[in-house]
Amino acid sequence: MQLHERIFELALKRSFFFPSNEPYGSVAGFYDYGPVGILIKRKIENLWREMFIKSEGFHEVETSIVTPEPVLVASGHVGSFADPVIECGKCKTKVRADSFVAEKHFDLHGERWDGKLDTLDSIISEKKLACPKCGGEFGKAFMFNLMFHTGIGGERSSGYSRPETAQGIFTSFPRIFRNHGTRLPIAVGQVGKSFRNEISPRKGLIRMREFTQMELEYFFNPSSGAYEGFDRHKSMRMRVSVEGKTSEMDVSELVRKKLAANEIMAYFMSREWEFYRIVGISPERMVFRVLGENEIPHYSKGNIDMEVETSFGSIETIGNAYRTDFDLSQHTKHSGQDMSVFVEEEKKKVMPHVFELSMGVDRLFYCLLEHCFRDKDEKKEWEWFDFPPVIAPYHAAVFPLMKKDGMDQKAREIADLLRSAGLDADYRESGSIGRRYARADEIGIPYCLTVDYQTLEDSTVTIRYRNDGKQERVKIQECEAKLRKAVRDGRVTL
Amino acid sequence: MQLHERIFELALKRSFFFPSNEPYGSVAGFYDYGPVGILIKRKIENLWREMFIKSEGFHEVETSIVTPEPVLVASGHVGSFADPVIECGKCKTKVRADSFVAEKHFDLHGERWDGKLDTLDSIISEKKLACPKCGGEFGKAFMFNLMFHTGIGGERSSGYSRPETAQGIFTSFPRIFRNHGTRLPIAVGQVGKSFRNEISPRKGLIRMREFTQMELEYFFNPSSGAYEGFDRHKSMRMRVSVEGKTSEMDVSELVRKKLAANEIMAYFMSREWEFYRIVGISPERMVFRVLGENEIPHYSKGNIDMEVETSFGSIETIGNAYRTDFDLSQHTKHSGQDMSVFVEEEKKKVMPHVFELSMGVDRLFYCLLEHCFRDKDEKKEWEWFDFPPVIAPYHAAVFPLMKKDGMDQKAREIADLLRSAGLDADYRESGSIGRRYARADEIGIPYCLTVDYQTLEDSTVTIRYRNDGKQERVKIQECEAKLRKAVRDGRVTL
Repeated sequence: MQLHERIFELALKRSFFFPSNEPYGSVAGFYDYGPVGILIKRKIENLWREMFIKSEGFHEVETSIVTPEPVLVASGHVGSFADPVIECGKCKTKVRADSFVAEKHFDLHGERWDGKLDTLDSIISEKKLACPKCGGEFGKAFMFNLMFHTGIGGERSSGYSRPETAQGIFTSFPRIFRNHGTRLPIAVGQVGKSFRNEISPRKGLIRMREFTQMELEYFFNPSSGAYEGFDRHKSMRMRVSVEGKTSEMDVSELVRKKLAANEIMAYFMSREWEFYRIVGISPERMVFRVLGENEIPHYSKGNIDMEVETSFGSIETIGNAYRTDFDLSQHTKHSGQDMSVFVEEEKKKVMPHVFELSMGVDRLFYCLLEHCFRDKDEKKEWEWFDFPPVIAPYHAAVFPLMKKDGMDQKAREIADLLRSAGLDADYRESGSIGRRYARADEIGIPYCLTVDYQTLEDSTVTIRYRNDGKQERVKIQECEAKLRKAVRDGRVTL
Repeated sequence: MQLHERIFELALKRSFFFPSNEPYGSVAGFYDYGPVGILIKRKIENLWREMFIKSEGFHEVETSIVTPEPVLVASGHVGSFADPVIECGKCKTKVRADSFVAEKHFDLHGERWDGKLDTLDSIISEKKLACPKCGGEFGKAFMFNLMFHTGIGGERSSGYSRPETAQGIFTSFPRIFRNHGTRLPIAVGQVGKSFRNEISPRKGLIRMREFTQMELEYFFNPSSGAYEGFDRHKSMRMRVSVEGKTSEMDVSELVRKKLAANEIMAYFMSREWEFYRIVGISPERMVFRVLGENEIPHYSKGNIDMEVETSFGSIETIGNAYRTDFDLSQHTKHSGQDMSVFVEEEKKKVMPHVFELSMGVDRLFYCLLEHCFRDKDEKKEWEWFDFPPVIAPYHAAVFPLMKKDGMDQKAREIADLLRSAGLDADYRESGSIGRRYARADEIGIPYCLTVDYQTLEDSTVTIRYRNDGKQERVKIQECEAKLRKAVRDGRVTL
């Protein structure tokens, strides 16, 4: 069984995630986060807010999902947010044509589809590629728009579920700029659902029709690409892949070698690298890939993706893009509202340039499950997850040894104590203590606190550490501070 | 100018909320939360999670927005989630018929529409009600389904943006029950977007086409309606309206008088009352309204709404419903998966009953703006918001008196210090100190910390309290603990 199959099984069993509307047979590409998974997802999102919004003094917004058509005409999505599709003439199965052809013909990271439907048609007919379901013949390839279309209200005007959170940021830019200081740079981020009406999604959380993005748009004066905090991060080392070759380099090298368009881009990449390390992605299995000229849009001054190795292969999880003034210019043109801003120092109006970072929460969550997965071995008879304490579903589990003589009440009190101190505590009283330790390991809880008879005498509990199974005796009144410190230091052993 | 007009103006100016896609002229019923509003909204949601999920040991999920048609056929939404509509024969304007007729004819809380289209048609023709836009004649009333319809993927199967978060909870119930102990009661909550394709929405955040719900489904064995924590809350006093008469009563009276179906319902109502008080709704302007027999669905064993007074009139903000086994029975029938559960003590299978509480985040947020709004007076020359510290956008603002001699750096350090202690701090360095105090009041920040020359000498800062404008001198190292305590106690004055 491949790792992703095992992870999927564990996800179902342990309430990380499961297919939406399971009793109805489920529709591909939709997943629900269960009680354990949602705690982890929320922590990823909140840590992102800390690192990419709050600590920088940036702004957050929550804009509407349903988006009127004119906005998405301006952004280019109505015209070109589409995949090539082929339909079987016999069984009517629709297949995404470029991936289908790539599987049979192209090497995914080498030769790429040139974007022409003819190319796909001729390969399909040359190689005699038939429908994988019924062996029937495919019709000609056509473009299929990937947005979920809908009609709005009594007026029945056209709208779509947004394909990215970014457009709401662009259309609210004029007001946010006006309300918050009318000076560049200004940055606005958003965490929220986006939608992509995939033809035939596979690979679980890697290709969802409904997914959560964390996006940041950094609006700046194009006269300078400098970033104030850059110097603090310039010597951080990262793995970077250029034209198929991966090497380690530091952040300033990225700018010097003109791989990153400017300091801004390099700075945010260094933050992403740090963010990924903190949440638990293995540094040796992640890499920034500098996209080639032929892979980036005409208006772009540079795109760099984060790619993470998984059992599905290498997965793109972050997009960094220097989008120039493309978005604001398009919206200016289509809405009629001038989105350029007056720059006092230069005594003129300037259309801000945009650096965008776009991360998928679900893909990162999935990569974490793979990277933090630990198989059974001589030490543990169960599979477990080595989550860093900061994103573990609970910081601690609290158990009474037995449900009697007041141990359960004491344990509940301790759980409440930890909760009121801002720690997430799970309380569990049924099952043998060994089974409860195993269950805590299985969902990646780093510390277990057990209340026993000795607790009632001397107000101490046993702390058991997930990673090495070692235990120590700690005074109840010291638990909170000790756990807080361990969480902050990311310590999972004695 | 009415209060809601003033609030709307302030919302725009101070980044609480604004119409989505403003540069494109906006479509009614869609609003974005701005940088200030989103901070408040997030705190409301997180406090709800604390009070209704975590402290109870309940489960949270995040289920898909896009929902396949069969699920919503089972729930009854495809068949009957609809409003009556009339269309003007001349200008084609569509109007929601029952509200239109009610405005002209019915008293909203007295006589109600009987649900028959004929009734509307005959009132419209009797009273000669014409199109308010062009004076044209209306055609016959018809039902208009309020869900946003869409097609899913290559298969183009029918789906909708969910009309409530509840259905995802019901369809994931079997798995969550299996994964989390297979015992009743079990409760599952969700915070997320829902959609209602209103004909012609008005009233800002009160009637949105896209909105956020906080819903909890409590699954229990119908053989008992008792609730374990009930006794702790039974003497809490609440305002209750029955058949148009409002009186104050305590929670146990609600059960004794059979106004609440059981202890479960009464318990959660007491939590709601507490939640509303904590976030800042005036107790004398909220009331639980017990719905009459003719207002509740046939399967219901009781519905009680929370209503809050605003300048729009009385607004329904919470729905409490004892839904019996209706939802799980419907999904059992339509999906073919038996959702009844085995109850060990009774040695038989039981279809769980459901108590549901459903709150709108946006409506609550809006009511808060109205209830916490304070007009200019002799003490303050500006309008401000008296938010309780726990939901204020920032706990504290930190200002350097001037941006020189290291005061700005010191202030930044203090802001970072507070942030790392889990407090939300705003840092602002430009504008006169008076203007900055005013601006902090205007968005409801309860405490301002100012760094001046004395700070550099003796490591103290000035704390200024929003509500009375009083100031005291505090040591920097004591700020964190002092603020934490003030926030916890909800104290806004010395």
